[in-house]
Amino acid sequence: MEFALIDRIRARALARGDVLLGIGDDAALLQPPGAGQALVVAMDTLNAGVHFPDRTAPADVGWKALAVNLSDLAAMGARPAWCTLSLSLPGADPRWVDGFLDGFDALARPLGLALVGGDTTQGPLSVCVTVIGMADAGAALRRDAARAGDVVWVSGTLGDAAAALAQWREGGDIDAVLRARLDRPAPRLLLGAALAGVANACIDVSDGLVADLGHVCRASGVGASVDVDALPASDALRGATGTGARRRLQATGGDDYELCFTAPATATDAVLAAAHATGTPVTAIGRIVAGDRVEAQLADGSPWALPSAGYQHFG
Amino acid sequence: MEFALIDRIRARALARGDVLLGIGDDAALLQPPGAGQALVVAMDTLNAGVHFPDRTAPADVGWKALAVNLSDLAAMGARPAWCTLSLSLPGADPRWVDGFLDGFDALARPLGLALVGGDTTQGPLSVCVTVIGMADAGAALRRDAARAGDVVWVSGTLGDAAAALAQWREGGDIDAVLRARLDRPAPRLLLGAALAGVANACIDVSDGLVADLGHVCRASGVGASVDVDALPASDALRGATGTGARRRLQATGGDDYELCFTAPATATDAVLAAAHATGTPVTAIGRIVAGDRVEAQLADGSPWALPSAGYQHFG
Repeated sequence: MEFALIDRIRARALARGDVLLGIGDDAALLQPPGAGQALVVAMDTLNAGVHFPDRTAPADVGWKALAVNLSDLAAMGARPAWCTLSLSLPGADPRWVDGFLDGFDALARPLGLALVGGDTTQGPLSVCVTVIGMADAGAALRRDAARAGDVVWVSGTLGDAAAALAQWREGGDIDAVLRARLDRPAPRLLLGAALAGVANACIDVSDGLVADLGHVCRASGVGASVDVDALPASDALRGATGTGARRRLQATGGDDYELCFTAPATATDAVLAAAHATGTPVTAIGRIVAGDRVEAQLADGSPWALPSAGYQHFG
Repeated sequence: MEFALIDRIRARALARGDVLLGIGDDAALLQPPGAGQALVVAMDTLNAGVHFPDRTAPADVGWKALAVNLSDLAAMGARPAWCTLSLSLPGADPRWVDGFLDGFDALARPLGLALVGGDTTQGPLSVCVTVIGMADAGAALRRDAARAGDVVWVSGTLGDAAAALAQWREGGDIDAVLRARLDRPAPRLLLGAALAGVANACIDVSDGLVADLGHVCRASGVGASVDVDALPASDALRGATGTGARRRLQATGGDDYELCFTAPATATDAVLAAAHATGTPVTAIGRIVAGDRVEAQLADGSPWALPSAGYQHFG
């Protein structure tokens, strides 16, 4: 089983000039980046029944397993170069693997991202990906650099993926636009790279906006004040939910893989220029403040009580 | 669950000067090696019930999950620097995680290997590790560089881990020496690094000697002739098995994580010097020949028929 699958995977791996030795040996040999560059490394696992429903299309699993890792690199302002893949499968199923690779490649190929190694093993369906990229050592975006007075920004729209998951749980039809956000999240790599040197702190929204902004605040020793009614919503989400549910999905729903970042008010023109240059909508949603809490208000200034439970991934 | 576990893991991560940003952000930032060095990347997963029995001590799982990856780096002649860890657990079990980290650290700490990222997720027990190291770009050991006339060497002893697995399957007592080889394989990092620039081809013995030497032959476009009775055996293995079973375990049993390497006959003194300098026993076990098959003989020159089934990991 294992060798035939590895041949299948290897046949589709992209060539890159900095891959000295790719899939097929005990390890890959890679040409490191030059002076002033840092390596940027992220690793994330998706388990069937936990991070995606058991019967998710294999191409969607392939896309998402790579996308969640690329989103971590986007949040650092890094450019992805190489990845490794560990695929645990209940049995050898070449059709499933081909479908998986279709989704994986659809994201990897336009980025010039080379799959350079990993393994295939027998086990419950699970996908682990490690992505390695580069960033200017001094300009990489971190969680711990938010400063009181910074404007808090978010890219794209929030709540779509969580709305799709809610519809899926209810057992009815799932809106196609919302579902695409859940199954095929688009990592904000161009925006992240353009924000390096412009933004102070950055994180990708995987656990939910309030939770992820909370990670930034904790790492930076600050608080934040967020305008819930300013959170950007898609037309699909507005059409699918009432105001209360929408606020909850946008503030606490996860799996959006948008970027939440902070920048000094004096950098607003530079933020908008980065957004324009990369074709990425961005919205100012609040401020970094002194303190250690994330607080939320409605448009009329009244406080909005955060739901106590954090976002739960599928399962 | 996740954050408390991550804090537990982070508290034990080793500091290194080339780790610019470790566990706790979206990705790690690492200082790449200098000119002439290649990055060396390996990734391997261990699944409960497949690669280790379900009730294996957590410290043994931690050791082995790292060891199998380090063995891949040893087989490239590389020096390990950083690793990432993805841990899927059925539930939050701090005691299990602490035990796991005890085994992981026991191997990582003396090597100065820094854990720099990864994730913890809910799911069937599974451990995925990515290790990144460095090697001189021109001297890294590959599978595809064996040449006809090379002497075939192997480090340490073969068959011990497979013998322990056989005893475990029979349900009786397991010899402690053999069991230690199965649970706590010692990656041959020092020998591998000393062989860079000396050996032609190298691989680690994970699938079994004949299978792994077959990988070298296939990649190099050569064949090999192996003297089965020359395969190095431990006293524990000799005490536990008869001649026929021993030959089978040594030639086809996996999980030994010894190095099998080839070197020109003119390099024999250099091989023995590398072995002596690193305190690692090595044994000449055959020759690389023209052709495309691995053939085996007994001491009297008669052919030894290879068992047809390859080694199966536990499960």
